[in-house]
Amino acid sequence: MNADAEQAGTETEAGTWTGITPDAARRLVMAAVEAFAERGYHATTTRDIAGRAGMSPAALYIHYKTKEELLYQISGVGHRLSLGLLQDAANGGGSPAERLAGAVRAFVIWHAEHHTTGRVVQYELGALSAEHYTEIVGLRRRSEAAIRSVIQDGVKAGDFDVPDVSGTTLAVLSLCIDVARWFNPGGRRTPDEIGALYADLVLRMVGSR
Amino acid sequence: MNADAEQAGTETEAGTWTGITPDAARRLVMAAVEAFAERGYHATTTRDIAGRAGMSPAALYIHYKTKEELLYQISGVGHRLSLGLLQDAANGGGSPAERLAGAVRAFVIWHAEHHTTGRVVQYELGALSAEHYTEIVGLRRRSEAAIRSVIQDGVKAGDFDVPDVSGTTLAVLSLCIDVARWFNPGGRRTPDEIGALYADLVLRMVGSR
Repeated sequence: MNADAEQAGTETEAGTWTGITPDAARRLVMAAVEAFAERGYHATTTRDIAGRAGMSPAALYIHYKTKEELLYQISGVGHRLSLGLLQDAANGGGSPAERLAGAVRAFVIWHAEHHTTGRVVQYELGALSAEHYTEIVGLRRRSEAAIRSVIQDGVKAGDFDVPDVSGTTLAVLSLCIDVARWFNPGGRRTPDEIGALYADLVLRMVGSR
Repeated sequence: MNADAEQAGTETEAGTWTGITPDAARRLVMAAVEAFAERGYHATTTRDIAGRAGMSPAALYIHYKTKEELLYQISGVGHRLSLGLLQDAANGGGSPAERLAGAVRAFVIWHAEHHTTGRVVQYELGALSAEHYTEIVGLRRRSEAAIRSVIQDGVKAGDFDVPDVSGTTLAVLSLCIDVARWFNPGGRRTPDEIGALYADLVLRMVGSR
């Protein structure tokens, strides 16, 4: 196992799951994130996940009927938390430039601090059931709508110059999400520093005056 | 299996592997890309790969001693091809803005057209042996150096305004690479259109005059 895989620890991501009760269900979710990140969804069994959580397969089954239910819960919680931060900043006070910078900063910091969860959520979308996939795509469309709406506000106010609003929205989200792929907690830049850099780059992308 | 997974076909990526001989080795590589993209590296066995290529496990073993050797070949070919296109554009003629736009366009089009290979290469880096990982990281550093050098040329010439050259280089590469994650051959934009959009966005990021 090389350095990248070793650094995919979830210590800092534990806070993500505090809303999941009871304690046993939360431990299973954390074990599943770790296992999926290390070996991929399809190479992980519910037995592996139960073992990592110090539980029996039968005890896992009380909380989650299938491995896909675990992935769905991880994906749902991850998408809802990052969407909430994005919307709070995008709908907050200030000029369109301040709101866009705040939204990018919040979304980038989330993806840096939760890079292990972020990778699982992004790479394993195709393993969700059709029904769960549709629900998660709905959450992704809401993130897109939040960014698009701030960009449109900036264009209307004459603050931004954006020839292709939907393409630019796509690029902004992609730039932020990909932080989860390359972020290294032992690297040179902190999540806050990357957030500040990216907020500046995105204001340049929209031609902010 | 949902729409995303269905569209991860490799028909358009077949040309990537023409340099691999003999024909049996090339068929094994193409089968491995498909299998890794569908189920992940760790969930794929050499028996699965041989079966997809219409060969026996013993016939696979003549060409590749381990599954990791297949991943290493896929990753090496993918990185060398995309690096070559990037360097040709970055070191070609024209102003720094023309060279940067050309490099981004070439790198983006490669990641859109080879999105299945691109996903395997990016998501499974951690499964390479330590020695192979080091070699691939060396190729990645050369892509980074090509982009950084054009940005520095633009800054020196007074054409670009870039407060953080290494951070901006990182963001430009990340933006291009992430096209492999979200690109959908049935979507609204062609690889060429995304290349043109991204070249414009990157010129804005570097404050091109």
